[in-house]
Amino acid sequence: MNLPLGYRYSSVFAGIRKQKKDDLALIVSDPPASGAAVFTENRVQAAPVRIARFHLQQSRGLVSAVLINAGNANCATRTGDRVALACCDALGKQLRVPAAQVLPASTGVIGVELEASLITNALPKLIQGLAPARFDDVARAILTTDTVMKVAHRKLTLRRRAVRIAGMTKGSGMIHPRMATTLGFVMTDAVLPPPLLASMLAVSVKRSYNRISVDGDTSTNDTLLLLANGASGIEPTDKELIKFEEALSQVLEDLAKQIVRDGEGARKLITIEISGAASEDAADRLARTIANSPLVKTAIAGSDPNWGRILSAAGNAGVAFDPSKVDIHLQGMLVCQGGVAADFSESELKKKLDEKECLIRFELHGRGMATARFWTCDLTEKYIEINASYRT
Amino acid sequence: MNLPLGYRYSSVFAGIRKQKKDDLALIVSDPPASGAAVFTENRVQAAPVRIARFHLQQSRGLVSAVLINAGNANCATRTGDRVALACCDALGKQLRVPAAQVLPASTGVIGVELEASLITNALPKLIQGLAPARFDDVARAILTTDTVMKVAHRKLTLRRRAVRIAGMTKGSGMIHPRMATTLGFVMTDAVLPPPLLASMLAVSVKRSYNRISVDGDTSTNDTLLLLANGASGIEPTDKELIKFEEALSQVLEDLAKQIVRDGEGARKLITIEISGAASEDAADRLARTIANSPLVKTAIAGSDPNWGRILSAAGNAGVAFDPSKVDIHLQGMLVCQGGVAADFSESELKKKLDEKECLIRFELHGRGMATARFWTCDLTEKYIEINASYRT
Repeated sequence: MNLPLGYRYSSVFAGIRKQKKDDLALIVSDPPASGAAVFTENRVQAAPVRIARFHLQQSRGLVSAVLINAGNANCATRTGDRVALACCDALGKQLRVPAAQVLPASTGVIGVELEASLITNALPKLIQGLAPARFDDVARAILTTDTVMKVAHRKLTLRRRAVRIAGMTKGSGMIHPRMATTLGFVMTDAVLPPPLLASMLAVSVKRSYNRISVDGDTSTNDTLLLLANGASGIEPTDKELIKFEEALSQVLEDLAKQIVRDGEGARKLITIEISGAASEDAADRLARTIANSPLVKTAIAGSDPNWGRILSAAGNAGVAFDPSKVDIHLQGMLVCQGGVAADFSESELKKKLDEKECLIRFELHGRGMATARFWTCDLTEKYIEINASYRT
Repeated sequence: MNLPLGYRYSSVFAGIRKQKKDDLALIVSDPPASGAAVFTENRVQAAPVRIARFHLQQSRGLVSAVLINAGNANCATRTGDRVALACCDALGKQLRVPAAQVLPASTGVIGVELEASLITNALPKLIQGLAPARFDDVARAILTTDTVMKVAHRKLTLRRRAVRIAGMTKGSGMIHPRMATTLGFVMTDAVLPPPLLASMLAVSVKRSYNRISVDGDTSTNDTLLLLANGASGIEPTDKELIKFEEALSQVLEDLAKQIVRDGEGARKLITIEISGAASEDAADRLARTIANSPLVKTAIAGSDPNWGRILSAAGNAGVAFDPSKVDIHLQGMLVCQGGVAADFSESELKKKLDEKECLIRFELHGRGMATARFWTCDLTEKYIEINASYRT
């Protein structure tokens, strides 16, 4: 087992969701971990997002426990803050740690009051169940419309000894039918102080979680938490920090791609690569606009080599470029050269587009050197089915 | 018949599209009309858009004929400009008007060369067929994936005499499977000089065509053209200009709503009304973001009174607001008050959501007085089917 040292996990069914499946999960770090987090940028933020941010500040980045529930987002509710605080208080008392070292996270329906007693009543059993090996139980308990569990592990050698990173995440629409959001929890046993952790998380998130899209929506509960409890006793040297950051980025990219691959109704993972843009921002915008175009996503679903849609979507990115200096490659085949059709075998390309992974390369010439990578999924009838029929 | 005086119409099948259905259309104004146009803001612009803009400038806004083809967008092609110019030249010669007074417009597949001879060979028959009553024939010839013809008429009294406005449009996805775009042609027999026409068109478009969305994409060929040939001999007084502008706005709003109602796969017309925003720009962004959220659109498709998705979508608009000062009404029923659930009958609301039209009212309090209206349609499985399976 490649799990980081010093963490214990548990999950129970507390009756928060209708389906009888564990819906309350706990991660405990002993010793308390350095914590860094990235939260949703949505103007509407769920109570657990507000409280987690507040607690991280109060505790100066020290985290002893993370309490997660699925089935109710505790967002746009009258009692939201009170419920989140009450649960953190109760857990803190029973674990004998300050309430500020407990971070809450929720995912599920928006606008329905969350009953605190459902959670507080379940705490004794939840704590009793804590065990270092129950990582996957937590990874399963946080899922909602996801069809598969999403975890990633890395082991790396620092100061010639082993350090571990383990992450779990959930999400398959940026917002689900009545159920919101992406959550991610990444644990390591390396020694890393909170400020360093925060800056590494920021860099890694930019390359991973902020580069995926299922439907272009950002939920009210998105939370990605990185914990480093130092249980391995190993502090990376300055040189090794880059190595650690790379491993962390790999774990996050791995998790992020698992989300897209399990996108609601998705059959294909689409990677979009932009090159030759004038700036990183321009490259990012081009990638994002192509990734969010329903017409590009449906064309890929139908294995239709319709590069005109990709060019047209790019034209809507708000980025200046000369269409006659654009090349587009689909599955490695040049389909558009200098803004017009290239000479390619449509039947061969159609066959290649039936594969599980699709690569779109969009190259600008003569503007700059900036690049961007982005992941999304195809858009199928199933997405509509999942999102329209939840209550009918 | 309420058709404006001084216009003749014709259409033929020229073999541009596969389906045997008229695909070449002509509108002729005699005397030449004042013309004003609004074109796509996509960075990638089709040849006919470039040439139409160029001709309008060359002729100082005088338009004798509009030559429209469906089935090929003449966009991202090697010979695009040359083909568009050659067709205008040939038509100008045969009609004995300057080529600069001929405007081209195209809609259809992107990235496939358009054969000029298909069009030029069909011109004699097209011209022969010109008749004042064949308005609907042109309205039908410009359609692609549309399921219904889209026209609108208004008659108004200026200087105590009748003036007419007649418009036609096409479009049901902002971009279609291999076929691009929205086109609109509006004719009037009032006397109006080009600069006045342009400013009235700009105002009216802001309230109509720029307030609709099917899938958030903007095509490479979008063209909306307003012609005023003065054949009625009636020039509105300064006071009456407002009256004319209002009638024009009604025609454009009518046409724009017909596009959304016929949105690819749509079953419902959704109207979004924002009030209480700090600025018009903020109101517009909120409306646009809610209208483009696939989760809001699928919820409406499923008659799911899921107001949390509306609130969450608004939170992604990049507009500052306090969620606790938001009220949301669905079909006239208060569903969210002060950012949390209001007391409403879900079963009653579900029944109301089964209607053909859906009204979302999003009210901010304490920020300002700006409002916005926006139209979109629900998102159903059929949209995917239309867009994914075109070539398979």
